[in-house]
Amino acid sequence: MSDSPVIALTKDLISRASVTPEDEGCQDVMIARLEKLGFQIETMVFEDTTNLWARRGTEAPLFVFAGHTDVVPAGPAEQWHTPPFEPTIIDGYLHGRGAADMKGSLACMIVSIERFLAEHPDHQGSIALLITSDEEGPFINGTTRVVDTLEARNEKIDMCIVGEPSSTHEVGDVVKNGRRGSITGDLVVKGVQGHVAYPHLADNPVHKAMPALAELASTVWDHGNDYFPPTSFQIANMAAGTGASNVIPGELKVQFNLRFSTELTNEDIQRKVHSVLDAHGLEYDLAWTFNGQPFLTDKGTLLKAVVSAIEEVNHQPPELLTTGGTSDGRFIARTGAQVVELGPVNATIHKVNECVKIADLEKLTDMYQKVLENILV
Amino acid sequence: MSDSPVIALTKDLISRASVTPEDEGCQDVMIARLEKLGFQIETMVFEDTTNLWARRGTEAPLFVFAGHTDVVPAGPAEQWHTPPFEPTIIDGYLHGRGAADMKGSLACMIVSIERFLAEHPDHQGSIALLITSDEEGPFINGTTRVVDTLEARNEKIDMCIVGEPSSTHEVGDVVKNGRRGSITGDLVVKGVQGHVAYPHLADNPVHKAMPALAELASTVWDHGNDYFPPTSFQIANMAAGTGASNVIPGELKVQFNLRFSTELTNEDIQRKVHSVLDAHGLEYDLAWTFNGQPFLTDKGTLLKAVVSAIEEVNHQPPELLTTGGTSDGRFIARTGAQVVELGPVNATIHKVNECVKIADLEKLTDMYQKVLENILV
Repeated sequence: MSDSPVIALTKDLISRASVTPEDEGCQDVMIARLEKLGFQIETMVFEDTTNLWARRGTEAPLFVFAGHTDVVPAGPAEQWHTPPFEPTIIDGYLHGRGAADMKGSLACMIVSIERFLAEHPDHQGSIALLITSDEEGPFINGTTRVVDTLEARNEKIDMCIVGEPSSTHEVGDVVKNGRRGSITGDLVVKGVQGHVAYPHLADNPVHKAMPALAELASTVWDHGNDYFPPTSFQIANMAAGTGASNVIPGELKVQFNLRFSTELTNEDIQRKVHSVLDAHGLEYDLAWTFNGQPFLTDKGTLLKAVVSAIEEVNHQPPELLTTGGTSDGRFIARTGAQVVELGPVNATIHKVNECVKIADLEKLTDMYQKVLENILV
Repeated sequence: MSDSPVIALTKDLISRASVTPEDEGCQDVMIARLEKLGFQIETMVFEDTTNLWARRGTEAPLFVFAGHTDVVPAGPAEQWHTPPFEPTIIDGYLHGRGAADMKGSLACMIVSIERFLAEHPDHQGSIALLITSDEEGPFINGTTRVVDTLEARNEKIDMCIVGEPSSTHEVGDVVKNGRRGSITGDLVVKGVQGHVAYPHLADNPVHKAMPALAELASTVWDHGNDYFPPTSFQIANMAAGTGASNVIPGELKVQFNLRFSTELTNEDIQRKVHSVLDAHGLEYDLAWTFNGQPFLTDKGTLLKAVVSAIEEVNHQPPELLTTGGTSDGRFIARTGAQVVELGPVNATIHKVNECVKIADLEKLTDMYQKVLENILV
């Protein structure tokens, strides 16, 4: 039995070992298909990252498929049952690094567009693909810079499906219609080092900081809302001391992260953290890394089109969730676009023996095609 | 001008580079002098450590000078103004590693005994020296094992001067008549590691531990007493986290130390710490290292004899303190002996350019001699 178009394309992409930030020609494979369909191709190389912006049509609304060609490293080769970059089908599952995250999705996008355009060559609006080779890495030169470029020339994305593996048990059982915000604080609490035998000559920063940190850890930041769980504060790293048992440390280093709902902004959080630290009279340095505002795509054209497409294929609606880590969706959502994530089951992503159910890729192609119809026809 | 007997002997000892646990023949030099005085010599070698027990007389009371021949490493040679193991006199100060800690004291002990016996060959009681080459190291095979040996054969020390550099500005301005106890706890608080995006699947041990640690840090353990400052709890080391900002740590490691007064025992402290950790519902491992009970030598024959000797030489009494780190005095005090520490100024000990004032060593010899007279005549 020969491979279906979507499986053949997924295999082609998996066989290119595009470990982040490498693209290894994946985008060229996609470009060849898209050019035949009349897409305008723009390759945007920023530093080590290759990005693709391919658009067909000039009218609004602009519907975008977003994704990435890079994959995480294969990890220990001896733990793989099949070579990670040799796509292999076993018992109805396609195995290989990137099968689920997210070369399968990329193939579904291409094939769904081909089928859609074959039936609706004169659809309304425009279709585009925003593809990067740096989603799994530091995501500095990827989607965010393409979005900056589009914004600078007033090219506005109206709706976007990110092909991230959103599903839990079968494709389409979960759609991510938003993501929490994320902000990281690197805190250094200052004290005075000294000998434990002479505590009056020292000032233990751990002792001073604990009540403040305990207060932050027990703070109820919000109660979340219909789409978001409550904001969560977590201390991820903490270090103090010289290693000697008789030395009072001179400083305490704490790294904490908050995943926050749409009830708060990063400014709210920063203000609150500083007020707690100040109220406890701490002397400290605090550097913030802001990883993204939360976003939510609620009852609009896109979500309605996606839910309806899934219901048609699965005969049941998806669960709408905002849990999980960050994704490139945040960079697109910040322009005001409607953004949802719909992709394969994520059970094996970033693990050895990553795989995707072949039937799920066929269904996902159908879902993507129906979304295009729901929005552009 | 030729060197006085105490300076000549101090120089001889400094010139032997007895970096812990080496003795480098220092004890042989002392033995040669003590044998002439009729001392019975016992060399006790335990593992890498050479110890000397030299006793003259069989009657009670048994008065002991205790000390060590080992020194800490010289440290960066280029920072020394004189070679560390070439004793050199500059402007009335004798320079060299061990000058103050405590080869000067050893010389004072020998010379004071020589002078005392010349005047009082038929004194009451007995005199002994307990000398080790492992006071600056792990102190496992030094004084503590000699004390064990003496206890096993019912040889009881009644009074002891430890020659540690107790003085602050001039010799005899401070006598240490006790030391705080010391106990160290190595605590591992258990949690469940996880992704910061899924806090409900993890259990942050830092968050759980902070209120308990804050309570321990703010606990008033006692108010001290006339001789001891209040007991002090200090967190010396703390570590948690993988280094990644998106991982909730699986455990928190904390090392803390208490310096405690005679108002408490190590059992009191251990019981209290466990009760606080348990009251906060923590899951933890806690390993204790007990470094020594506190001891106090209050208004007895020894302290009276020492204070009187210092007053005779300095025309003012010493300050009695129990501050500072631990010393081998704790091993002798645990037998029930009266123990005080009297030695040179400690300003330069463990530093480059360690030195001792020549006049102070002469005075210390006088003080030691007067103590012998006060107790044994």
